[in-house]
Amino acid sequence: MLASSASGISQALAGFIAACQWEDIPEPIRHEARRSLVNYFAVALAGSQDPTLDIAVRVHGHFAAGRQASLVGRGERFDILNAAALNAMAANVYDFDDTHHPTIIHPTAPVAPALFALAQSRPMSGADLLLAFVLGVEAECRLGNAVSPGHYARGWHITSTCGVFGAAMAAGRCLGLDARTLVWALGSAASQAGGLVETLGTMAKSVGVGNAARNGLLAALLAQQGFDGPARPLEGERGFLRVTADNPDIDAVTRDLGARWQLADNTYKPYPCGVVLNPVIDACLALAGDAQLRDGGLDRIERVTLTGHPLLRQRTDRPGVATGRESQVSAQHATAVALMRGRAGLAEFSDAAVRDPAVHKLAAKVVVQEDDGFAVEAAQVRIALPGGTELARRVDAARGSAGRPLSDLELEHKLREQARAALPGWNPQPLIDALWQLDRAPDAARVMDLAA
Amino acid sequence: MLASSASGISQALAGFIAACQWEDIPEPIRHEARRSLVNYFAVALAGSQDPTLDIAVRVHGHFAAGRQASLVGRGERFDILNAAALNAMAANVYDFDDTHHPTIIHPTAPVAPALFALAQSRPMSGADLLLAFVLGVEAECRLGNAVSPGHYARGWHITSTCGVFGAAMAAGRCLGLDARTLVWALGSAASQAGGLVETLGTMAKSVGVGNAARNGLLAALLAQQGFDGPARPLEGERGFLRVTADNPDIDAVTRDLGARWQLADNTYKPYPCGVVLNPVIDACLALAGDAQLRDGGLDRIERVTLTGHPLLRQRTDRPGVATGRESQVSAQHATAVALMRGRAGLAEFSDAAVRDPAVHKLAAKVVVQEDDGFAVEAAQVRIALPGGTELARRVDAARGSAGRPLSDLELEHKLREQARAALPGWNPQPLIDALWQLDRAPDAARVMDLAA
Repeated sequence: MLASSASGISQALAGFIAACQWEDIPEPIRHEARRSLVNYFAVALAGSQDPTLDIAVRVHGHFAAGRQASLVGRGERFDILNAAALNAMAANVYDFDDTHHPTIIHPTAPVAPALFALAQSRPMSGADLLLAFVLGVEAECRLGNAVSPGHYARGWHITSTCGVFGAAMAAGRCLGLDARTLVWALGSAASQAGGLVETLGTMAKSVGVGNAARNGLLAALLAQQGFDGPARPLEGERGFLRVTADNPDIDAVTRDLGARWQLADNTYKPYPCGVVLNPVIDACLALAGDAQLRDGGLDRIERVTLTGHPLLRQRTDRPGVATGRESQVSAQHATAVALMRGRAGLAEFSDAAVRDPAVHKLAAKVVVQEDDGFAVEAAQVRIALPGGTELARRVDAARGSAGRPLSDLELEHKLREQARAALPGWNPQPLIDALWQLDRAPDAARVMDLAA
Repeated sequence: MLASSASGISQALAGFIAACQWEDIPEPIRHEARRSLVNYFAVALAGSQDPTLDIAVRVHGHFAAGRQASLVGRGERFDILNAAALNAMAANVYDFDDTHHPTIIHPTAPVAPALFALAQSRPMSGADLLLAFVLGVEAECRLGNAVSPGHYARGWHITSTCGVFGAAMAAGRCLGLDARTLVWALGSAASQAGGLVETLGTMAKSVGVGNAARNGLLAALLAQQGFDGPARPLEGERGFLRVTADNPDIDAVTRDLGARWQLADNTYKPYPCGVVLNPVIDACLALAGDAQLRDGGLDRIERVTLTGHPLLRQRTDRPGVATGRESQVSAQHATAVALMRGRAGLAEFSDAAVRDPAVHKLAAKVVVQEDDGFAVEAAQVRIALPGGTELARRVDAARGSAGRPLSDLELEHKLREQARAALPGWNPQPLIDALWQLDRAPDAARVMDLAA
């Protein structure tokens, strides 16, 4: 199934995507694809009501060429390009979506929306959609592997830059493109790859993520009609890999292709905040139930000391935050709000939560210490009370980390929670059931009907 | 008018664009803007019938949300985003468009289509459009100056990557955005900047150029509705300038802003081929009329020796080309076809011209020599005939170079030539007249009615 790199990496990747069959996908990977989609609908529901989406839906509303495709969690309908863009924005707006650990790509946001939009415009079975999803994520994350870690470190928003290729390959597979035509789609995707880390924390980030889904789909539709491209859009001297990374590992694009699957490295966030905060929140939620913190016990806290991997301090030692968005990367805020409320959902990382004076007061007592001995997914929380009393909790593998992945039931719970917040009174169970059974569905588009 | 860089380059550039008035633009720059637009319609007419456009128009036709905006040289009508993309593709498809010499940006292709589309959807005077055009080109080329020469050398298609900012600033100015909102538009433009040199010579290049116009316009429309972005999308640590260039000259964005205008460095091509070939073609066209080459004289040529700047050999010493597109960067083909036909238009760089056996035969006798003593815009052509006879012509400043710019009449002639080829029997004179008088036109959109 795997062409050697002699014929070129772009050609080899395209050849694999054109040839791979549903039967070639191991069951654990098929199941991870279903899990990724459950998580996708959870986070797209969460993001669907954000002001970012309200503005984007209003502006894109002037450019809707049809009503074939729907938005997750909203009533508006659009043509498939606009729907792909808007659903991708919704899924990623809070960075609450899935994470491919080796690259920190959020793999599903650019790929799934392009596929579901396409499914709403042409016959597509659930198994066809799942296969294309697996292959799109495979392409996207393999390009990410090849340009990591320099690419993100330089400032490329890797979900956007690699996502456009994932969407192009997923859509191209569903359109039945042959290998040569898939290389053309990679070329038009390469022409459209963009997105900058500088925009994180602002609405402008979402344009890049939306584009990844929309432009990948466009690249496949153009290629289908004969719109050609260069022979080596990925590995060429002035191709994507060399231009966006100083020392790309070009062979990583095809190494163990068909034997090692990128979805196996996909993880899902239990909390809507920076992933390095996960073990801290785990510990705080466990401590929040302690009897000594009840009945005013929180007010008696003298100090909270967090100890973790150096990245914990470098990325999240951020006292005095002003917005919900900023609070998502503040160890002080996350610690205080989780201890006080015993919860860590979107409401706990909202502008309203940041304005809570009691949260402010407790957050001011939180200090962060780094210790090389901790893994990224580990942390310790020590609470100093009067009279030398200390409450402590150590977490070695945070919920949602590779070592302690969210269970299927936890993913369902996440979807239900986001649905309750976004669409009170709506019953998400038929959607959840349809997603777990997607590979047996004759019509993949029915899922979107259940989510609109 | 000029803010210091203390408040940030993005802010300073946006402040300038928000504040600048038509009265601030010197007459030579206003005239260069009109010249750029005459050239734009010439090259957009030329490209409008290319297969690249046929495919793109067919695919985009499925996503037309309205018919407000027209295409140059074609009958189809689209919403303003799609029209901006397609007209930008047409203007640049042959690389026959204008060149900002310091950066080799083709400045007009991303900016003008966004503006004319906007003019077809809202009231806009000719002077408003021209002012926005001058400012859009100013932003685009100043970013180009800041990232050159490393950016293009690394593989970024600078017309696409910088063009999206030009379109955003031009459209934002027409929408009346204030400085803060223009910075947001720069942010959404930064999220969408892309385009790779690897795609040159293929249709995939045109997706990037089309996106630059479309996405710049989208960035301005989003910002107008409150879609925010980072404070320093250009100069931030992970902003456009530092991510896409190793050693950006960040101050170049605002140096002499309002005193030195980028349009003063814009030039126009007389021939649809690589700009280093211009002096060779000038010489060949002059030699083509020589009596010794008539009546079978061409068949007696023993050798043609071209001498020029090292770039002439490095970029165009390309015998045995197979396609019209390749012939645009072949010194052998350009020399042969210009000597034989006494012309060097699109027909001379077509697939049909490449298939002409007589052209092949003469091209095989052409050799290229490099000589450091020649400037890029200079070349010598020596034709060896039997018996030691030699015909020679040296050109020191090629037509279309900064030292010998095309005259207004030559630009008109270029537009007429392209119109005759693209739309036989159509009279372009009303369009030409309207362009020269654009600053006095109450309705800029009328130009598009004349060009459709």
